[in-house]
Amino acid sequence: MGDFNQSVILEAIRRSGEGLSRIELVDATGLSAQTITNITRRLLDEGLITEAGRTINGPGKPRVTLRLVAESRFSVGVHLDPSVITFVLLNMSGAVIARRVVRTHDPDPHRIVETMAQTIDGLVDEAGIDRALVAGVGVAAPGPLDAAKGTVVDPPKLDGWHRVPLRSVLAEATGFEVTLEKDTTAAAVGELWTGSATAEDSFLFVYLGTGLGAAAAREGVVVTGSTHNFGEIGHIMVDPDGPPCACGSRGCVEVVCTPQAIVEQAEAAGVFRDEPDDGGARGVEERFARLCELASAGEIRALGVLRRSAEHLAVLISVLTNILDVDRVVLGGPFCAPLSEVYLREIPEQLNRRSATRSVRALRVDSAVVGEDVGAVGAACVVLDAVLTPRASDLYLED
Amino acid sequence: MGDFNQSVILEAIRRSGEGLSRIELVDATGLSAQTITNITRRLLDEGLITEAGRTINGPGKPRVTLRLVAESRFSVGVHLDPSVITFVLLNMSGAVIARRVVRTHDPDPHRIVETMAQTIDGLVDEAGIDRALVAGVGVAAPGPLDAAKGTVVDPPKLDGWHRVPLRSVLAEATGFEVTLEKDTTAAAVGELWTGSATAEDSFLFVYLGTGLGAAAAREGVVVTGSTHNFGEIGHIMVDPDGPPCACGSRGCVEVVCTPQAIVEQAEAAGVFRDEPDDGGARGVEERFARLCELASAGEIRALGVLRRSAEHLAVLISVLTNILDVDRVVLGGPFCAPLSEVYLREIPEQLNRRSATRSVRALRVDSAVVGEDVGAVGAACVVLDAVLTPRASDLYLED
Repeated sequence: MGDFNQSVILEAIRRSGEGLSRIELVDATGLSAQTITNITRRLLDEGLITEAGRTINGPGKPRVTLRLVAESRFSVGVHLDPSVITFVLLNMSGAVIARRVVRTHDPDPHRIVETMAQTIDGLVDEAGIDRALVAGVGVAAPGPLDAAKGTVVDPPKLDGWHRVPLRSVLAEATGFEVTLEKDTTAAAVGELWTGSATAEDSFLFVYLGTGLGAAAAREGVVVTGSTHNFGEIGHIMVDPDGPPCACGSRGCVEVVCTPQAIVEQAEAAGVFRDEPDDGGARGVEERFARLCELASAGEIRALGVLRRSAEHLAVLISVLTNILDVDRVVLGGPFCAPLSEVYLREIPEQLNRRSATRSVRALRVDSAVVGEDVGAVGAACVVLDAVLTPRASDLYLED
Repeated sequence: MGDFNQSVILEAIRRSGEGLSRIELVDATGLSAQTITNITRRLLDEGLITEAGRTINGPGKPRVTLRLVAESRFSVGVHLDPSVITFVLLNMSGAVIARRVVRTHDPDPHRIVETMAQTIDGLVDEAGIDRALVAGVGVAAPGPLDAAKGTVVDPPKLDGWHRVPLRSVLAEATGFEVTLEKDTTAAAVGELWTGSATAEDSFLFVYLGTGLGAAAAREGVVVTGSTHNFGEIGHIMVDPDGPPCACGSRGCVEVVCTPQAIVEQAEAAGVFRDEPDDGGARGVEERFARLCELASAGEIRALGVLRRSAEHLAVLISVLTNILDVDRVVLGGPFCAPLSEVYLREIPEQLNRRSATRSVRALRVDSAVVGEDVGAVGAACVVLDAVLTPRASDLYLED
């Protein structure tokens, strides 16, 4: 029970922000005063928490406030996206203290791993941090993953990444322990860490990236699935009149809801005056940004395209929430920001109309707290999570 | 920790079938010998377990085998289906010791509750059981439910059941504690209890009833969702060329995969020589049974209809397994038996072709252990579950 209780206490102190006294920890955790005293002594010795002032609150001994030492541990988060690699360095309180972005179109995974290792070393060195305090490197990558082997398995939009043993080669290149997680799962962990989610909260995280993905959290824990591949949603049908899909069906998320598909819908609707782009990732990003700007400016065709895409997304989200029965929906990911105005206006009503539990409760739709870095921040949080967060599965049952 | 450890020990003894010695319980649970001795003494005093012989195994004290007393507690399970109500009485080992079926087309929920109460009383009385040993009544009902209020909320196929406070009126009418659960969730609990599932197993349960539903188990626990409405799948699109659905879309599960929809497909394919039925629930059941018989006998059009329905179901299941990332699929429910031959032959290959994790592992497809009574048996297991199964959420953390 020792490690589990230690995590419970650390997590309570972290979440409090301002710190908690030992008495307040008894209330917050349900643990005995003796247990709190023993474990907080150990945490003080290890430098993870500190005594931060005393409060006199009526008669009796003044209460000592225990606060997390933000600079006691660090972690690196890397988001491997088809067109851009984002790196962040987080401290123990979840704050980003350094960030780098590397754009690459290099098709060779081994050269990319080399770049990743150099960037991570540079990030840690420039921050002037003792490498021994870095708890590890978390990598968020597009699924599916072979989590047991630590490999990226044929992700649809990462050519040349066929079964790359990313975890082991990056660990060797950096000397850090490396954790590999799906980008969508990492993003939901990031939302749990930095968002307003509570331990009882359950939410669906809809990740709007180059591809779309989903993650879910229940009782403060992100569901990973049995092979760490929870949330593959590319072939859910959202439009029976949609274009054909490589899977043999029609109108799947992958050919209707991605930024590339939305850009094509905009081209078909005559939103752009110039010739269609060659379809490269960079071209899609630029056209997508222009589409969103036009819609913001009230251009009627652009707005129509985004409204229609909100309808498609509402169908997808209703499929997911009707299956998963969560309390609310969080929209996030690198492509979320420019869409969130239209999506947050259009989706809630359509979603609730399609909700199987509409007569029991209304589903809330929020946008994520972390913006386009959510994958990298989330990956770093996955590493801190392993240090901090209590897990029932860590339990050893003993009287 | 007392109750949690007690549940762990009881569950280990129950799962062993033949019983376990205290030493074996130390190995099976990870608890200390002292804890095992204390808790098993309490369980012996309460009559939940008994000493069932001694084994001499080399030198030292002979080992006493501890076994569950099957007749120490009982529970009643009720499955409320649109056309038939099934009642079972289970003992503590999960065995069905009495069963009744009531067919009714009474539209008045209050008369139905009266019938339910009388049938439950009769079941318990005729079995000659002390009512004090009945842990409660579990009711499996079609979703969605308002679990907080214990009401059935407008289930699509139960006319007249608008917000019936089933839990409280049945508790009042019987004097037993009543637990209300979705039929699909109850069925998955039944599979966990009676099937070969292990504590590590994660599976998707696909419920083939008058409507279709899904449930999922992870690490030996059925996921209920935050409002006990997990697994509403009626409006997932499986056929872009399918018939229109009341939700405004096309080709949803509800209009393609239900027994009624399959019967209509068979009628359109000219499987039956007589005139189309009037569409009543009884008529659908009869035609559905004839369709399955014809397919079994090799009638080519009937077989074609069932093969096509297997394709639709494979699309649905792939949507669910790609989201949920479970280890295997279990097909069950009252309409499963006559379909399982065709479905178990056709679905696995199609499902694995559509699986996002096909390069990581193959998904297994099994049929459920309990047959058409799975809803009622599962509902009774939900009640026993509350007595027996350890839950992390029952934990009070204390050194």
